[in-house]
Amino acid sequence: MAHPLFDKHKPTLDAALGALRTRGFWSPYLEIPSPKVYGETAAADGKAAFDAWLGKRFELDQPGITGWAAPERSPFGVELGVSYPVCDAQALIDAATATMPAWRKLGPEGRVGVCLEVLARINARSFEMSHAVMLTTGQGWVMAFQAGGPHAQDRALEAVTTAWREMAEVPPEATWEKPQGKNPPLVMRKQFEIVGRGVALVIGCGTFPTWNTYPGLFAALATGNPVIVKPHPNAILPAAISVKIIREVLAENGIDPNVVTLAVSEDPAVTQRLATHPAVTTIDFTGSNAFGQWLMDNARQATLYAEMAGVNTVMIESTDNYKGLLRNMAFTLSLYSGQMCTTTQAILVPAAGISTPEGQVPFDQVAADLGAAIDKFLSDPATALGVLGAVQSEATLRRIESAPSLGKVVLASRALENPEFPKANVRTPLLLSCDAADEAAWMEERFGPISFVVKVADAAAGVKLAERVVREKGAITLGLYSTNADVVDDMTEASLRAGVALSLNLTSGVFVNQSAGFSDYHATGANPAANASYTDAAFIANRFRVVQRRWHV
Amino acid sequence: MAHPLFDKHKPTLDAALGALRTRGFWSPYLEIPSPKVYGETAAADGKAAFDAWLGKRFELDQPGITGWAAPERSPFGVELGVSYPVCDAQALIDAATATMPAWRKLGPEGRVGVCLEVLARINARSFEMSHAVMLTTGQGWVMAFQAGGPHAQDRALEAVTTAWREMAEVPPEATWEKPQGKNPPLVMRKQFEIVGRGVALVIGCGTFPTWNTYPGLFAALATGNPVIVKPHPNAILPAAISVKIIREVLAENGIDPNVVTLAVSEDPAVTQRLATHPAVTTIDFTGSNAFGQWLMDNARQATLYAEMAGVNTVMIESTDNYKGLLRNMAFTLSLYSGQMCTTTQAILVPAAGISTPEGQVPFDQVAADLGAAIDKFLSDPATALGVLGAVQSEATLRRIESAPSLGKVVLASRALENPEFPKANVRTPLLLSCDAADEAAWMEERFGPISFVVKVADAAAGVKLAERVVREKGAITLGLYSTNADVVDDMTEASLRAGVALSLNLTSGVFVNQSAGFSDYHATGANPAANASYTDAAFIANRFRVVQRRWHV
Repeated sequence: MAHPLFDKHKPTLDAALGALRTRGFWSPYLEIPSPKVYGETAAADGKAAFDAWLGKRFELDQPGITGWAAPERSPFGVELGVSYPVCDAQALIDAATATMPAWRKLGPEGRVGVCLEVLARINARSFEMSHAVMLTTGQGWVMAFQAGGPHAQDRALEAVTTAWREMAEVPPEATWEKPQGKNPPLVMRKQFEIVGRGVALVIGCGTFPTWNTYPGLFAALATGNPVIVKPHPNAILPAAISVKIIREVLAENGIDPNVVTLAVSEDPAVTQRLATHPAVTTIDFTGSNAFGQWLMDNARQATLYAEMAGVNTVMIESTDNYKGLLRNMAFTLSLYSGQMCTTTQAILVPAAGISTPEGQVPFDQVAADLGAAIDKFLSDPATALGVLGAVQSEATLRRIESAPSLGKVVLASRALENPEFPKANVRTPLLLSCDAADEAAWMEERFGPISFVVKVADAAAGVKLAERVVREKGAITLGLYSTNADVVDDMTEASLRAGVALSLNLTSGVFVNQSAGFSDYHATGANPAANASYTDAAFIANRFRVVQRRWHV
Repeated sequence: MAHPLFDKHKPTLDAALGALRTRGFWSPYLEIPSPKVYGETAAADGKAAFDAWLGKRFELDQPGITGWAAPERSPFGVELGVSYPVCDAQALIDAATATMPAWRKLGPEGRVGVCLEVLARINARSFEMSHAVMLTTGQGWVMAFQAGGPHAQDRALEAVTTAWREMAEVPPEATWEKPQGKNPPLVMRKQFEIVGRGVALVIGCGTFPTWNTYPGLFAALATGNPVIVKPHPNAILPAAISVKIIREVLAENGIDPNVVTLAVSEDPAVTQRLATHPAVTTIDFTGSNAFGQWLMDNARQATLYAEMAGVNTVMIESTDNYKGLLRNMAFTLSLYSGQMCTTTQAILVPAAGISTPEGQVPFDQVAADLGAAIDKFLSDPATALGVLGAVQSEATLRRIESAPSLGKVVLASRALENPEFPKANVRTPLLLSCDAADEAAWMEERFGPISFVVKVADAAAGVKLAERVVREKGAITLGLYSTNADVVDDMTEASLRAGVALSLNLTSGVFVNQSAGFSDYHATGANPAANASYTDAAFIANRFRVVQRRWHV
């Protein structure tokens, strides 16, 4: 029995199923913030809707409210003043648990229908969301619109689509008829019911409060689990708006809105209490290695999907488009001041330099050229401010300050003034160079706009080192620039052994730190940077169980 | 590029895909040990092939052989005298690791083709396997043929089929073309490669050395992982024959046979060393809660699929076929002397008795009638010996001896003589009765032919108790006899909440302890008896990763 919301959104679901099977370019949520797509007044309406949240209580009718908290501090220096209800952890768990039977009974079609309706509404509010993402994370506005809006919605739809695909493989019922020779057959009727595993906890990060939260949230929801969303204390508003939309759609459809709740707290102990609660069966986490390891060690009652830190690496061996290479890498290193889990940190260059159409370029010159390319790219203030955004955390500011001692400074980080947001913390990338042997410097994650041009003996040593970095430190992205087929083959084999996605010779409008919904797998789950990939079958299939019953007919 | 073995077995794979989607009755491996199916001389040839293994070395050309061991002691008292190579654990790990790149490169079609060829050959040797399973496990011959042969092969084929289905969702390559308005589109070529997670370890049990070993073994293999098979020290031969067949097929196809090796040891420390080795990424385990918990606590580098102990429960509330009920349960409790992970241990009966077409039957009478039904069913010695088989372990013999003190003896266990195997340890079921409050007696797993008729206040109390047993102790099977729709609904809801498969009113030729390949999910993974189900998507999808590469075209 189909659900009206399932029928309503079935064309989107069918197209998404096809897209995941072919992995070409596809997105139903357009990334262009255009009035033609989103409506003539969408930009102004969205800004007004965002402004309306500021300086007041964000009302959510959740159980166990014990107080209100307003922990967000904008990297742009803007006073947000939004306060959120703080709820008792046990009350949230109890409320979530109570919703399970009805959420299960809604069935895969009903749950998927609800999720798709939610996504359509979230998409319609992409302008509002863009400001919420921008001002809590420090992303520039265009990026906040795209990554925080349509791109995040794409990943959510991927999760729902994969969930549907996996659930649809389980028939709701079957007739089993076993021949018995000359005797009548044995006949049984069987029913197979998809059952969520329990309460899911989704722990968000401070830099991508929707993009990294939606996959786990919607994967858990679609497969029958109630979800408690625990946003990073500095990026609550995007999660809160999302949760409010979900709760509205649930309530409109006669479902207890406590299927999804928001857990706000600045105290890690509260997150730890939630994470180790026996009722919590699944945790999606994006954040530091330290807290990820704590979850692995302590939240052992739950299945953990964790995306943590790594040392993303690019090797430059040779190129047929040196200028394109430099432009491409300058953008990668500048975008959102390098505060992406996919930003390149280590740039391996052979000691003898690299081969280019303009001739062999020595190691030091490659470093200098890259520094100059960054400088040139950021020479236009409007471009610079739009691309860099602001630095999200104090810790990253401190890292930038102390990092110059880690190597030879190729390009110093500069603080930029942002006329629109005078208190914004804007920093340009810091580029250092060092020897491969200085592992303590370049082979630890230095989150933020800090990169190293690392001198390796030769291409073979670089491939070997890149593989070791991925294996030991983890990585979400690996890049190679080479016109040499043998080097490409060697690095490809290394990427397969180490388990990391490889981008080859990016010299135009695709960047190593970007992954496209419905096409690129984000992380592999095969190296220490993440134990799962958005949003493959492994990310989905273990979130539900099949419980059967059978009887003779 | 398809593989010849994939093409050869594609019709079987296609039929299996269809069977898993509809979950009606289907099996390509016929369970009837008939000369018409398996060949006129198959029975004699199989027996001769089995006999040829006895009293000598089982040659396996594996690396790191340090000695030979012959630990098997037949429950039928037969001298087996097969000795197996004992290999250095690190040598097995190293050899397995070295096979990974070539096994990966064979691709999903090649690996699935190899697996299907292996299964066809194992099927052709079902008679040989039946004797190996019978004489190592104590299963009666018909059961050893069916459960150790075709039914185990069915579960293996399920695993391969689900693996194929999940891998086939990942396209090997894609063209990604993103429009850029009036500018030329961004175009990328992408390749997506399926990569196994690492060395897989499959730890077998003493009672079902093929049925419980094949799902993990073939799931891991098909998805690109080399496998080390560690059989139970008392049931090595069925695993060794299986491993030898796999190695033959691998070698014939130019693949290093060390993709699959056999690890023989009586020393748990060796298994522990393998299980905690950093190269081991996946463990399939069937066995005790104690060792399962040890693996959870210590083998944390690996993903664990564990099937352990539980307290399987049936509630009898009412029936429209009391005789059928008694016959059905008598068979269930007798089959393989109750040494199945699915055998009922607790039979909940309301204090006021049960409603039947012959009137209300009081509690004590239900217990007595069930005891009498078992006694009657086993009154024919040929039937009794064939169904009971022999008791697999000394521990189970001791449990039978000490169990009478746990309750009121309804039917005592008897030792039977087996003329064909004079030294066989044959025991009839022990049936006790007790009060629900005697939880220390009936609510711990008593593996073997030991069951309890448990007095509960009423049907509602019984449903509540059944749910608690499943939640706290785990269960693979739950049964209910009731003609009352409300009681059926209540127990159905309880089964969904607790996560256990429910069989309703089995009074003919299907038994609560049997699960049919391609139709029934074996275990749910949702209660403490097992954290996974044979052989659903969750059992498969986390065994491989997708590693991509992309470049502009």
